Amino acid sequence: MLLAPGDAPARPVTLRSAPLRSAEIKATVVYPATEKHLRKYLRQPVHLVRESADDYERITLPFVRAQALSLQWVYNILEKKAEAERIVYENPDPQDGFVLLPDLKWNQSQLDDLYLIALVRRRDLMSLRDVTAEHLPLLRNILREGQAAIAGRFGVAASQLRVYLHYPPSYYHLHVHFTALGHEAPGCAVERAHLLADVLDNVARDGRHYQRRALACALRDDEPLLRLFREAGRL
Amino acid sequence: MLLAPGDAPARPVTLRSAPLRSAEIKATVVYPATEKHLRKYLRQPVHLVRESADDYERITLPFVRAQALSLQWVYNILEKKAEAERIVYENPDPQDGFVLLPDLKWNQSQLDDLYLIALVRRRDLMSLRDVTAEHLPLLRNILREGQAAIAGRFGVAASQLRVYLHYPPSYYHLHVHFTALGHEAPGCAVERAHLLADVLDNVARDGRHYQRRALACALRDDEPLLRLFREAGRL
Repeated sequence: MLLAPGDAPARPVTLRSAPLRSAEIKATVVYPATEKHLRKYLRQPVHLVRESADDYERITLPFVRAQALSLQWVYNILEKKAEAERIVYENPDPQDGFVLLPDLKWNQSQLDDLYLIALVRRRDLMSLRDVTAEHLPLLRNILREGQAAIAGRFGVAASQLRVYLHYPPSYYHLHVHFTALGHEAPGCAVERAHLLADVLDNVARDGRHYQRRALACALRDDEPLLRLFREAGRL
Repeated sequence: MLLAPGDAPARPVTLRSAPLRSAEIKATVVYPATEKHLRKYLRQPVHLVRESADDYERITLPFVRAQALSLQWVYNILEKKAEAERIVYENPDPQDGFVLLPDLKWNQSQLDDLYLIALVRRRDLMSLRDVTAEHLPLLRNILREGQAAIAGRFGVAASQLRVYLHYPPSYYHLHVHFTALGHEAPGCAVERAHLLADVLDNVARDGRHYQRRALACALRDDEPLLRLFREAGRL
């Protein structure tokens, strides 16, 4: 279903066949879906752009500011207006706190494809590009407390988790992915994923690493942002 | 088939059903196979270790030196004693040159799973841990000339390639992977793959980046190196 952008806050909703059976089918229904959501699920050629710091300021940031999807569904979770019963762990600190909950791609009936998301409480961090030395306490909390919470609740040790950020993210409110290391989760390939432990080391060494450095930016053929990179002669 | 280590240089050999059919089956036969080869193809839990520079010197490097598999099959390719007809491109410089050829996992009958390997000519670089500012010309050659050769031969643009190194590698002679960006190649996940473009930026900024920094090290449950990390209390 196609709606005009802004019609309603969109949040993917998982429908599942009732009791666990050996031939269970898991389906994800996105409602309401914008054209951007539809594109996300179509197979498309992908291009890798090397986004310099200057590209980010001149091309990506203005684009993201102009056309971001609503983040109301994130704020609803943070304010416990939605999905409060799904929260696995939370750190309530307004600056350095976060909420950890299962990703909707994980049905929680087995650990093989374990997938959780940590959403930061503060609302001023869009992506890895905004992360500086100031955010080290927040990111350390997410890594340590997130790992401990997952070990406590699901019995999966820290050494069996892949903890990472996407760049570019699919929504511009800073969040961290926790997936089972044995699960080849979509988006865990090197051109999109950044291990949180590497992010911590990079920022500890240079507080402005993510404002200074070029980042890989994998963009689908039909993404408007790719057209902007093409027009700027950057592809 | 199990042979004692050192019995013969081992190189995976691909057997393929003859002409292309819709139901073609591709099989990889490793002969002769050591116990280490067998383990590589068994499904095993994986653990992520954070290998510090000190861990590398004290744990990993002595282990690798003591028990590396023979590299004779690499030297045979470099010396054109084997697979000479498969070479896609070569730069003959003894210090900054390399040989580019299709990986044996790619049967070359379609571009979806394109996979090539660049083997450096010099024999003194075991892995990313040995890469310093001195090797920037070599690595830049591999990136630029490798991309150009693949565009020329296969018509795949640089922006549709994932160019990366593995850490830890499966053999300790420095090599670079070129895979189709749309192909979720084994080993392209963030805990093992390092984009060559990022390696170049890291080394250009700090010539000893890979001797100083911690690196993710994904090890299978049955790998002897994991036992050493466990015994050292690093897991």
